[in-house]
Amino acid sequence: MPGNRRFALRQRPEGRIDEETFELVEEELPAIGDREALVRTEWVSLDPTNRTWIDDMPGYLPPVQIGETMRALGLGRVVESKHPDYEEGQLVQGLTGWTENFVASDAAPLQRVPEIEGVSPSFYLGVLGMTGLTAWVGMREIGKPKEGETVVVSAAAGAVGSVAGQLAKREGARVVGIAGGPEKGSILTEKLGFDAAVDHRAEDWREQLKAATADGIDVDFENVGGEIMDAIFNRLNLHARIALCGLISGYNESGPPSAPRETFGNLLVKRATLRGFIILDHFDKLAEVSAQLAEWIADGSLEPLETVVEGFEQLPSAINMLFDGANVGKLVVRVGS
Amino acid sequence: MPGNRRFALRQRPEGRIDEETFELVEEELPAIGDREALVRTEWVSLDPTNRTWIDDMPGYLPPVQIGETMRALGLGRVVESKHPDYEEGQLVQGLTGWTENFVASDAAPLQRVPEIEGVSPSFYLGVLGMTGLTAWVGMREIGKPKEGETVVVSAAAGAVGSVAGQLAKREGARVVGIAGGPEKGSILTEKLGFDAAVDHRAEDWREQLKAATADGIDVDFENVGGEIMDAIFNRLNLHARIALCGLISGYNESGPPSAPRETFGNLLVKRATLRGFIILDHFDKLAEVSAQLAEWIADGSLEPLETVVEGFEQLPSAINMLFDGANVGKLVVRVGS
Repeated sequence: MPGNRRFALRQRPEGRIDEETFELVEEELPAIGDREALVRTEWVSLDPTNRTWIDDMPGYLPPVQIGETMRALGLGRVVESKHPDYEEGQLVQGLTGWTENFVASDAAPLQRVPEIEGVSPSFYLGVLGMTGLTAWVGMREIGKPKEGETVVVSAAAGAVGSVAGQLAKREGARVVGIAGGPEKGSILTEKLGFDAAVDHRAEDWREQLKAATADGIDVDFENVGGEIMDAIFNRLNLHARIALCGLISGYNESGPPSAPRETFGNLLVKRATLRGFIILDHFDKLAEVSAQLAEWIADGSLEPLETVVEGFEQLPSAINMLFDGANVGKLVVRVGS
Repeated sequence: MPGNRRFALRQRPEGRIDEETFELVEEELPAIGDREALVRTEWVSLDPTNRTWIDDMPGYLPPVQIGETMRALGLGRVVESKHPDYEEGQLVQGLTGWTENFVASDAAPLQRVPEIEGVSPSFYLGVLGMTGLTAWVGMREIGKPKEGETVVVSAAAGAVGSVAGQLAKREGARVVGIAGGPEKGSILTEKLGFDAAVDHRAEDWREQLKAATADGIDVDFENVGGEIMDAIFNRLNLHARIALCGLISGYNESGPPSAPRETFGNLLVKRATLRGFIILDHFDKLAEVSAQLAEWIADGSLEPLETVVEGFEQLPSAINMLFDGANVGKLVVRVGS
């Protein structure tokens, strides 16, 4: 009899996720009842915000409880259905979690995903899903770069940053990406068309940032926080906009996320506008934005970046790639097909 | 022969302004040339931002140089004119500085002030001038409280805060003022109509804030920074707005102004919008806003608060009242009449 495997939260990590954090649970395949559908997971999305969901702190979603399946966005195929909204063979996505099989229901609904020739379904977990929408909202609704302005994107080779920077280029801005290591820098400037890259692992990263933003910074798409954000805030132009998308530098600390250490007052002096946003508030725009981004991918004007890890059992180690900067673009785990 | 007195910057203070900071210069009355007018100062405005002008740090205005007359807004009367824009006896205001006499010119222009029965000219340095406009922009253009929302104003008994809180009350918001000492609290709730006051000098000020904002905080009119701002940021509601007007808690430190120490990440979690603003950018609205506020003062629905210190020579000691919380409402020095 085929079984199911899932990763449950065993204990909350103090800092980094390790072997003690999750427990692999093997169990019988769940049976479905009326108005339920069984979905076999094909792809799991790994995102920095996942790390915040396992801290025992109030957040924008309730913390995952000990013993619960780890929460995550995922994409799978309906294999059995007793629900009129789901039919066998259909691709669906939503908060499936770290499980090989998921029971969709009225209380735990999933959304249909179109199957398009030449478009990997995994893109719906990335550029055509939450991370693409995140980049869109932050850049086009908050940052709003104008032609000739200078835009800085931190974690620029990540899933959100790589799209955000390309969206700014479309508006005619000068785009500077901050990422770790020369390989990522080359991807940004050569593959994605960024104007400059700053290697935050280089000793002279502050000088690199200064040189790359000689006219100051008009828009900061902020994914990182901490000393990188401080360096950016130090170079803000008048009326700068900060799209506060993430503070990944603080997510593995047991304390609060990294605040600007020395430059908060510059938000006042430069009359800056900083807006925090979380993509849950913007789901209503997903279909429209996703269709637009798919069009740009199809005409070759938007480059989707993706790192694929193979194998369900890799989930607990793969998530740390996000914090080690080991992935390029969207990080997904392929569970089966 | 009548002379002139002015205070020049002698040395930059490390922290608090003291007797060594300014030098009283006695000199001949300046003679005026073509297209110039001599203005006798009647009122000098003292504002927290003055303190930032004498640090040797880049700000929104160049630092006052050693030997220069201290910069300040002031109001005076034209006593002699060789300029077609100024006529003898007329009231004018602008950046006159800490001087008994000022020479207006095309390079250093002043603006006419109307003389209205029952309205002290000093109001044009406060509620009908920059501080009233500051309150207006921060509350009506950034904070935008809706009926029933909770608004917190720090430095609420100050020149800007006392007006900002009253503007929020007009919109039907619940308004909580933070100020030092029970006397100021009584003024806020009894004279200005605030719903609650928090005494930040009391040991239990955090509990007071919590009790006064049981439904969380929707709008923060931020004048102070530091631990008071941290406590406010901890209680933000979803989609809160922060009008970042000042960070007075840091102005006397030699380091940078007080950043949020523990709660910056809450701006992200609560999808807050923070906007720094400086009133220099909003001068174009002054006449319109001033006329509206004058109407509300006339009909008794807006209470102007003012502390008047008598005597030009009091300027260097009077400015510290702002940092000691010794003034209520707008602090002005009457120079002569």
